[in-house]
Amino acid sequence: MTETTDRGRALSEELNPGMEAALEARYGHLVPGLAEGVVDFAYGRQYARPGLPLRDRYLATIAALTALGGQTAPQLKVNIAGGRKAGLSREEIGEVIWQMALYGGFPSAINGLNAALEVFAEEDET
Amino acid sequence: MTETTDRGRALSEELNPGMEAALEARYGHLVPGLAEGVVDFAYGRQYARPGLPLRDRYLATIAALTALGGQTAPQLKVNIAGGRKAGLSREEIGEVIWQMALYGGFPSAINGLNAALEVFAEEDET
Amino acid sequence: MTETTDRGRALSEELNPGMEAALEARYGHLVPGLAEGVVDFAYGRQYARPGLPLRDRYLATIAALTALGGQTAPQLKVNIAGGRKAGLSREEIGEVIWQMALYGGFPSAINGLNAALEVFAEEDET
Amino acid sequence: MTETTDRGRALSEELNPGMEAALEARYGHLVPGLAEGVVDFAYGRQYARPGLPLRDRYLATIAALTALGGQTAPQLKVNIAGGRKAGLSREEIGEVIWQMALYGGFPSAINGLNAALEVFAEEDET
Amino acid sequence: MTETTDRGRALSEELNPGMEAALEARYGHLVPGLAEGVVDFAYGRQYARPGLPLRDRYLATIAALTALGGQTAPQLKVNIAGGRKAGLSREEIGEVIWQMALYGGFPSAINGLNAALEVFAEEDET
Amino acid sequence: MTETTDRGRALSEELNPGMEAALEARYGHLVPGLAEGVVDFAYGRQYARPGLPLRDRYLATIAALTALGGQTAPQLKVNIAGGRKAGLSREEIGEVIWQMALYGGFPSAINGLNAALEVFAEEDET
Repeated sequence: MTETTDRGRALSEELNPGMEAALEARYGHLVPGLAEGVVDFAYGRQYARPGLPLRDRYLATIAALTALGGQTAPQLKVNIAGGRKAGLSREEIGEVIWQMALYGGFPSAINGLNAALEVFAEEDET
Repeated sequence: MTETTDRGRALSEELNPGMEAALEARYGHLVPGLAEGVVDFAYGRQYARPGLPLRDRYLATIAALTALGGQTAPQLKVNIAGGRKAGLSREEIGEVIWQMALYGGFPSAINGLNAALEVFAEEDET
Repeated sequence: MTETTDRGRALSEELNPGMEAALEARYGHLVPGLAEGVVDFAYGRQYARPGLPLRDRYLATIAALTALGGQTAPQLKVNIAGGRKAGLSREEIGEVIWQMALYGGFPSAINGLNAALEVFAEEDET
Repeated sequence: MTETTDRGRALSEELNPGMEAALEARYGHLVPGLAEGVVDFAYGRQYARPGLPLRDRYLATIAALTALGGQTAPQLKVNIAGGRKAGLSREEIGEVIWQMALYGGFPSAINGLNAALEVFAEEDET
Repeated sequence: MTETTDRGRALSEELNPGMEAALEARYGHLVPGLAEGVVDFAYGRQYARPGLPLRDRYLATIAALTALGGQTAPQLKVNIAGGRKAGLSREEIGEVIWQMALYGGFPSAINGLNAALEVFAEEDET
Repeated sequence: MTETTDRGRALSEELNPGMEAALEARYGHLVPGLAEGVVDFAYGRQYARPGLPLRDRYLATIAALTALGGQTAPQLKVNIAGGRKAGLSREEIGEVIWQMALYGGFPSAINGLNAALEVFAEEDET
């Protein structure tokens, strides 16, 4: 066990409780170590880094996934929900997605807004 | 002349003095109105919007252009320089670009960092 | 209200009656002004431009959305339907989509043809 | 009838019995010759080429479709199934898809693994 | 020799005299048959098809390559030049490229216009 | 120091001697830990995995980078050179790149072949 894995696990459990176990259960038999790799690299060596607040990291991820297009819609929704917990307002999320019309095209932005509306509706239901 | 065009022109001249005239000179004979369209839509109806600070808008754009890949390297450099003026530190820019390894792949992130290093070197020369 | 917004609104209402109101109803609370921005920029400053007939503009859009891949399938279907109203034959639409096998790959072209077949089936049902 | 078409047809029928007829039935009225074009070019002039074993060709295709992202999920599943018949183990397929996290991003790799799990589940049901 | 190859060769020689020989000289030792494959599929089975005039096919290709982004800049320039010979005016080419701001983003459209300006400048030098 | 980092460092030094130090020198002041992250994740947790031979991993990477398009040309060349050392013949590399015409489009495949020809020419010069 290493520092980056520990740090990643702490953050991953804080942000998405149970995610590592879920990845292990779903993919571990096929790709052993995948879950630890996600925890160590994506959380421990990226999201947990100092130098940029978590709120800004989610903002950047929402921007990128919107511009890359709707094939990552499931991940976009997860990150919109994560961004909300990290302090992004609905307005800020709407703004950054709509701005992506300039870089990923209008259809990408509209598809991104649809993902956001779904997340916000789920929030309201809770 | 309209409100969004006026607002866009004010912001465009503040951020990139002379850009509208340069667009008009280069593209206006081929696509009349292009420069005004950029000013009105990209600046007046996007970057000048309330709801998200300029610094955050640049952060999002740098993230998206990095993830979309190096074909937009010229625009990425322009936006890194713009983000610096809007208050992003070099560290924050390095962080957000490297984070894109997760979404656009490692080559995109490395290419994005190269663009950032070029911009920072130009800053140091000035 | 401006010339480009007026021109865009006229064209938007002719091509997609009620679209601006639908955009406003769905996204306006989250991103105020989005609907007017679409009308002004996409319709008033792009599709309503002289210099290229509407039929050709739809042809180009169908080509681009096919090559960019299936994440924009909803928008591709809207533009295939729009292209039909602007004078494109089914054969011409089939041809341009299949040609995209050369630029976006075979899967993109096949996915594009599937979108076209859905639109044509809806036409036949009407 | 030509050598490449004959060779392509033989391979296509071996790998996907009935595929040419299915393409003809679905798309032939709209794009005459599409099915023969797929058989001649994709099978006769690509997959049937000497110089790279079929197993390796499927490996490459699975890698590319994963990295390009989930819009080609239907084709990715077809090629995962094809790769299995050409001798790729589940482990090898899991490995190559997960490796694409480096090039197409983590979401693409996860989406690709989901496609693989669906194919493997269908295998187990048979 | 087949009908599609013959038809493709006739069109390829008309549009790009010497292209097949150039492909063969450059790539034939590495990928035998590549040149014939391009002639047969891209020209004989795509561009030479009835159902869509050559001018429209170039329009579609210019749209798609612009939206896909600048990594295909060499091919975009070739197709802009080809489109000029097939009857597209500079204005039409400028229009269709600028329209791609809606689908491939503003940077893609600007990069596409730069490619067009280079082609037009080469025309003026001749 | 961890098992995955050690394993990654051993492989990275074997395949690309000095690469970690070069990454550290170039990017370490801006993004501390980037070099170790590449070594640990890309080498230790991906390329060094059992389950798929190195030769196959390079084949997959060459396929993906070709299909993703020329913006990753620098990385494509590095991986073609790496694939050569891992046992891929020039013919196999030519084959897999040309096959990508089916998935990333003809321009991507031609651009990929150009990258390969450059690498092969550099080999011949050595």
